[in-house]
Amino acid sequence: MATLTVPHSIPSPQEDCEQLNKAFEGWGTNEDLIISVLAHRNAAQRKAIREAYQATYGKDLLESLLHETHGDFEKLVLLWTLEPSERDALLANEAATKWHAANRVLIEIACARSSEELFIVRRAYHTQFKRSLEEDVAAHTKGDFRKLLVPLISAYRYEGVEVNMHIAKSEAKLLRDKISDKAYSDEEVIRVLTTRSKPQLLATFNQYKNEFGNAINKELKSDPKDDFLAALRAVIRLICSPEKYLEKVVRLSLNKMGTDETALTRTVATRAEVDLKVIKEVYQSRNSVPLEKAVKQDTHRHYEDLLLALLGCEEN
Amino acid sequence: MATLTVPHSIPSPQEDCEQLNKAFEGWGTNEDLIISVLAHRNAAQRKAIREAYQATYGKDLLESLLHETHGDFEKLVLLWTLEPSERDALLANEAATKWHAANRVLIEIACARSSEELFIVRRAYHTQFKRSLEEDVAAHTKGDFRKLLVPLISAYRYEGVEVNMHIAKSEAKLLRDKISDKAYSDEEVIRVLTTRSKPQLLATFNQYKNEFGNAINKELKSDPKDDFLAALRAVIRLICSPEKYLEKVVRLSLNKMGTDETALTRTVATRAEVDLKVIKEVYQSRNSVPLEKAVKQDTHRHYEDLLLALLGCEEN
Repeated sequence: MATLTVPHSIPSPQEDCEQLNKAFEGWGTNEDLIISVLAHRNAAQRKAIREAYQATYGKDLLESLLHETHGDFEKLVLLWTLEPSERDALLANEAATKWHAANRVLIEIACARSSEELFIVRRAYHTQFKRSLEEDVAAHTKGDFRKLLVPLISAYRYEGVEVNMHIAKSEAKLLRDKISDKAYSDEEVIRVLTTRSKPQLLATFNQYKNEFGNAINKELKSDPKDDFLAALRAVIRLICSPEKYLEKVVRLSLNKMGTDETALTRTVATRAEVDLKVIKEVYQSRNSVPLEKAVKQDTHRHYEDLLLALLGCEEN
Repeated sequence: MATLTVPHSIPSPQEDCEQLNKAFEGWGTNEDLIISVLAHRNAAQRKAIREAYQATYGKDLLESLLHETHGDFEKLVLLWTLEPSERDALLANEAATKWHAANRVLIEIACARSSEELFIVRRAYHTQFKRSLEEDVAAHTKGDFRKLLVPLISAYRYEGVEVNMHIAKSEAKLLRDKISDKAYSDEEVIRVLTTRSKPQLLATFNQYKNEFGNAINKELKSDPKDDFLAALRAVIRLICSPEKYLEKVVRLSLNKMGTDETALTRTVATRAEVDLKVIKEVYQSRNSVPLEKAVKQDTHRHYEDLLLALLGCEEN
C-alpha cells in the first residue's frame, strides 16, 4: 500500500551520512544525491541516519537540509525526513497556531491515524512544543470548531472490530434528527463522531443510508460553502475512506488554476509510507490519468524529482 | 511516600502462589495468609503472582479471591490485587456507567494521575471494556458535567515545569470574570482547567489569589450544595494538592454517622503504593489522631487487618 521503495541491500547509516555530506559540500547542492539516499529509506532508517549524522558532524541533519535546500524541495525533504510522529506534531502545530476555518489538517491527523499513532503524535507534541496539542487547539479555536476539534484530537478511539447494532440504529436516528433540524454542531452529533470507534461509526453510517435513503454526507451538503459542515463531512469521509478523501486533496492540489504545493507536499510526505499506492489507484480511476503524470505536469526540477521518487516511479 | 511495605527478601511468585492456594484450601479461607502475601507485594510482584497462579492452577487469581472472600475485605483485596491501570479502568467504568452528579471518581482519576498514567488507564479500558473511556463517559453524562468530564479524562497534559506568566495573568483574570458572572460552566473556564499543565494552573491560581485577594476555590463556594461547583472545586484541589483532597475523602469516609467503605477502600487501594504516607500525615495533623486509629475504630476483622497492612502498620 506504500509507494516508498527501499533497496534490498542498503548502505549503513554511516555511509548514507557520508553521501549526504558529500551532497552538501562545495558550491551548490547535489539534490539528486540527497534524493537517492533519503527518498529510499523508511522511517526507522531515516532516524538512524539522523542519529549517525548528529554523531559524526555534530549537527542535526535537518539543519543542514534547511541550509542547503530551498523552496518546495526544501519543505518536502524536511517534512519527509522527520519521524512520522514529529512530522504530524509539526503539521498540527502549524494548523493549530495559524488556525482558520478552511484548514482541515487537524481533522486529517485526528482521523487518518490509528489511535496509538495519534497518541504518539500528542507525546511528540509535548517534546517539540512544551505544550499539549489539545491545549494549543483549544486556545486557538472557538465556538463550534473548538467543540469538534478538541475532542477529535484528544480521542483514543477503541480499535476492536466489535459493532453494537443497537447503538448503530439509535445513533443513526439521532444523527438524522439533528441533521433534519440543522443542529449540526449539537453536542450529541459531536459526541458520536468524536468518541465512537471507526467500525461502529461505519455501521451507524450504513444504517443511516439503509434507513433514510441518503448517505449522511449527502445530507450534510445543504450548504457546500459552510466551513463547519465541510469539516463534519471531512471527519466522516476520513473515517469511512481516508484514501478517497486524500485522493481529493491531491486532485484539488493539482488544480489547473495553480498548484497547492502545501497540500501536495503534506499528502505525499505523510502517506508515501502508508497508503499512497491506494491513493494513486483511486486517482487513476477517478481522473483517467496516472498521478505521476499529473505531478510531472504541475511541478518542476528537484521538487518534481523527489515527489516522483516518493510516488515510487523514477524512470523519468 | 508510599505506605506499602515489601520484605527485603521476598519469596518467588511460585512460592507466593502456593501460600495463596493453601489459604484457599479446605473449609474456610485463611485471610491472614492472603494478607501476609498480597499486602506486601508491589504492583509488579502482584502481577508476577497472578501470572504464576494462572500458569499453575489454570485460573485467574482474582477469580479465586472472588470465590474465597466476602464483603468489604473481598472488595479491597480484589481492587488491591489488580494492576494500577486495570484498577483505575474498573473504577472509571463503574463511575461512568453508574454516573451521578455527586460522584467524583472520574475527576480523581483524571486529575490525580500523571498524563502517562492516565493514558495507560485509557489503554487498559479498551482491553477490559471493548470501548473507550471517553466514549462511556460521554454516553452516560450530559450538559455541564459532560463538557467538563470528557476533556478531563481525555487530557494528556504537558508535564514540563515551564510556566508562562503572561498566560497565568490573563487566565486568572478570565477565570475571575467568569466566576463573577457565575458563568461556571463557560467553555473558557473548562478549556483552562482541562488543557493547561498542572504547573501552569498552579501559577494561574496563585496569580488569582494575589490579584483578587481570595483563593479561587473560596470563590467557587457560593453554593456548597451545587454539584457542578463542587466538581470544579475537586478539579482545582486535586491539581493543587491531591494529598489534601484525598485526606478529606478519607476523613469523610470515617464519618461518625457510618463508614463509607467504598471511598475508604478506593483511596487505600489506589494510594498505598503512591502517597498514602503523606495522606496519613495530613490526616494526623488535621484530625489530631492517627489515621490507623480512626480506621481501627470504624472497621472490623479481615477488612480492618488488610487496611492496616496497606497503611503500613500491622502491630495490632
